[in-house]
Amino acid sequence: MSSPEHGPVLTGAQPSVGKHVMALVEGLVRDADALRIKVDALPGGGRVIDAGINVPGGIEAGRRITEICMGGLGTATFNTREAHWPLIINVHSTHPVVACLASQYAGWSLSHGEGKDAFHALGSGPGRALAVKEPLYKELGYKDDAQHAVLVLEVDRQPPAEVLAKIRRDCNVPDDGVTLILTPTRSLAGTVQVVGRVLEVALHKVHALGFPLQQIVDGSASAPIAPPAPDFLNAMGRTNDAILFGGVAQLYVDCEDDAAADLAQKLPSSASRDYGRPFAEVFKEVKYDFYKIDPMLFAPARVVVSNLRTGKSFRAGQINTELLAKSFGEGK
Amino acid sequence: MSSPEHGPVLTGAQPSVGKHVMALVEGLVRDADALRIKVDALPGGGRVIDAGINVPGGIEAGRRITEICMGGLGTATFNTREAHWPLIINVHSTHPVVACLASQYAGWSLSHGEGKDAFHALGSGPGRALAVKEPLYKELGYKDDAQHAVLVLEVDRQPPAEVLAKIRRDCNVPDDGVTLILTPTRSLAGTVQVVGRVLEVALHKVHALGFPLQQIVDGSASAPIAPPAPDFLNAMGRTNDAILFGGVAQLYVDCEDDAAADLAQKLPSSASRDYGRPFAEVFKEVKYDFYKIDPMLFAPARVVVSNLRTGKSFRAGQINTELLAKSFGEGK
Amino acid sequence: MSSPEHGPVLTGAQPSVGKHVMALVEGLVRDADALRIKVDALPGGGRVIDAGINVPGGIEAGRRITEICMGGLGTATFNTREAHWPLIINVHSTHPVVACLASQYAGWSLSHGEGKDAFHALGSGPGRALAVKEPLYKELGYKDDAQHAVLVLEVDRQPPAEVLAKIRRDCNVPDDGVTLILTPTRSLAGTVQVVGRVLEVALHKVHALGFPLQQIVDGSASAPIAPPAPDFLNAMGRTNDAILFGGVAQLYVDCEDDAAADLAQKLPSSASRDYGRPFAEVFKEVKYDFYKIDPMLFAPARVVVSNLRTGKSFRAGQINTELLAKSFGEGK
Repeated sequence: MSSPEHGPVLTGAQPSVGKHVMALVEGLVRDADALRIKVDALPGGGRVIDAGINVPGGIEAGRRITEICMGGLGTATFNTREAHWPLIINVHSTHPVVACLASQYAGWSLSHGEGKDAFHALGSGPGRALAVKEPLYKELGYKDDAQHAVLVLEVDRQPPAEVLAKIRRDCNVPDDGVTLILTPTRSLAGTVQVVGRVLEVALHKVHALGFPLQQIVDGSASAPIAPPAPDFLNAMGRTNDAILFGGVAQLYVDCEDDAAADLAQKLPSSASRDYGRPFAEVFKEVKYDFYKIDPMLFAPARVVVSNLRTGKSFRAGQINTELLAKSFGEGK
Repeated sequence: MSSPEHGPVLTGAQPSVGKHVMALVEGLVRDADALRIKVDALPGGGRVIDAGINVPGGIEAGRRITEICMGGLGTATFNTREAHWPLIINVHSTHPVVACLASQYAGWSLSHGEGKDAFHALGSGPGRALAVKEPLYKELGYKDDAQHAVLVLEVDRQPPAEVLAKIRRDCNVPDDGVTLILTPTRSLAGTVQVVGRVLEVALHKVHALGFPLQQIVDGSASAPIAPPAPDFLNAMGRTNDAILFGGVAQLYVDCEDDAAADLAQKLPSSASRDYGRPFAEVFKEVKYDFYKIDPMLFAPARVVVSNLRTGKSFRAGQINTELLAKSFGEGK
Repeated sequence: MSSPEHGPVLTGAQPSVGKHVMALVEGLVRDADALRIKVDALPGGGRVIDAGINVPGGIEAGRRITEICMGGLGTATFNTREAHWPLIINVHSTHPVVACLASQYAGWSLSHGEGKDAFHALGSGPGRALAVKEPLYKELGYKDDAQHAVLVLEVDRQPPAEVLAKIRRDCNVPDDGVTLILTPTRSLAGTVQVVGRVLEVALHKVHALGFPLQQIVDGSASAPIAPPAPDFLNAMGRTNDAILFGGVAQLYVDCEDDAAADLAQKLPSSASRDYGRPFAEVFKEVKYDFYKIDPMLFAPARVVVSNLRTGKSFRAGQINTELLAKSFGEGK
């Protein structure tokens, strides 16, 4: 863990993810018909965007939502490879710690109720940085002051009134200052925006390994777009596997070579004791209890760590085509 | 063939390709000098854009025209591969049936006259959806209502007055409500915008195979940019071969697995009886009569069909490097 | 050398690089906080943008500066490959001779003073075409008339007052009509914007070989982003090696096949007598005297020359993975 005596990760003025994101959100609303998503009014004010519940949505909607998740501080582009799974998402960030950890990470618990009507959601996107409910923000030393909260929820239905009230209150925005974007796990947009977390997943493990985030200067990453699965378990499993077995990240750091080499060794998913099977199998085995899975499993397949202080690069891990095929539902 | 008893493919409000395209068209006009294209007034009103007849044009002009052909409902990007033919176009669409079939497909016959002065053209782009002269539109259930007709013609000269009058009349636009973009087959822009049809070619064959277009949810595709040839036959042949031997498409469908597997098997160009030689040779052998060529030949080299209903993916076909080399005019 | 009796390369109206670049420059200024660059007032008027001296900058800043170097007449995009060095920059130009040679080439000597306080810089970007101090401009037949001079300098500190005065005078712009962008060689933005010269390097060698620039119609290129090195020699060496050992260019020409075949043979870096070692070693051996290095060394690793006049393509050279690894500071 980063030791608090080092002070916050971010010092000085920082870009506002809530302000940088607005042009992208307005574009999403303006092009809703082309993207096959649907914009509705929220009860009491604000907007909710359905990106795959009652409308088809699609991969381009998912690409744009990925950029929205990064608070407008990054770009997501598609290209294709002569690979088994040809469609690739490339993620770059202008400011990886703010874009990925302060905005994109799905870390804000927005669950409500119990039993079969319970609403479970982890809020992602720039609105998190208004609420700063997670301990991570203290470490980062980041709090946004935008007037509009944009959140992405990987859910199948609109949040209940209590959750909406909580968002408005915790984000300290006017009633109409909320835009919620809903991307079910099984939808195309949902699949893309989760696989588009490949750089964020790398940074999250960097943090979990106790490597000081101050020493992360820049980064880029890519991963193949998983084909969605109709059941939640496999849909979720595949988006994880796209990163675990197909993700590649290059991080630029500023530290001693020993620390950079150590980071490279520990960072890939293959450094985890739980590596070796599709994620859905691992999850099933622990009886769907996330906390029993080795947190070190959540990482890209292959990493390059380039150390700006010395000019040396360290690499580890590799793309696992066989496990991708096993996970991605290869037909006959 | 799709059976009409299924009703139209598209139901409910649809995006207007004629409206979504206008920002791209205005950008093309604004950057004409940078793109080495030329904008002139049409007799009686409107604009004609020369993208390679008396001006050089170029690959970037072709990329933008590809996006215009899709009615502003898709993106075309270049990247490079460590392949024999390094320049690749990636095509994604926000709404593949509307973007590719209702707009991009070169299906509106705009020929006029006979003999050596005859003008032969197949109109492509969003203006087609104003005229809806093709039976396809009834099946699709799509008609645009924009006030401006944008058409791309793969021709070497301006259309005669009769054709221009027909366009204005059939599209029901004011005299100055026409923008024609001319891209000769032999030009760089023409080459790019034809190879950029790789996703449309896949969808067209999906339709020809009788697979219900309602079940196509999304898609992406790529192909190598062919080097232009100075003679029409080889220029045209190579743009076809770029798709037939170098194109890759991934389609997301919603159907039974048997139908998805069957589609994957039949979709690649190699499933055609006419597969195996550069297109120019095939065309010559049938004495330049398109209708004697197996329509099943027009398809990408390799396809992945991912079924959203079951989560299974089916693949068939492969990139044919040897035939690409044979077609693309490899020097010594 | 191009024989002057052929007249200037460019005839007729040409796009203004100084005008086309302004939207990109304003975007860079607007997004400065997101890009971790810093905009300051220049003494006497105008702006200076620090892209890696006292601020981190980053790879996205470098991508945007690459497009600014091309005077807004080209695009630079990132994608990733399943290669040892995954991050790739793709450069396309709408008008390669103007974008790369009249704007992007670092050809304007802006050095001042002597000894250890001397300021050494080669100006790059659209401002060069206002000053037209280089003999190249007479050959090109290009002079820009924009009111604002944008220059990119690969330096570690602000230029002295004398250099700033010279820029204002030679570019004939008002005191506040200057934007300087500073990208140190060792910075991420500096690395990206130098590797992003891969197409320009190809065109520069085309010119050095005496191939008529009139016959260059279009082009695209790519190269892997080198990891920066902390010392100037290796930082500079690696950005060269990214192009020399990892760069790929495809040029479209209009000439006789013999000339196209000859160009392809001579164009790759491997056609130089100095090919075979990391650039830093070569530079050291000639005691840091650039003029003792074979100018033919500066070229992409692999080229495809496609001749529009005949339709034939010629290729030579290859990516040298081993020398890239040797140059790029592979750790253990």
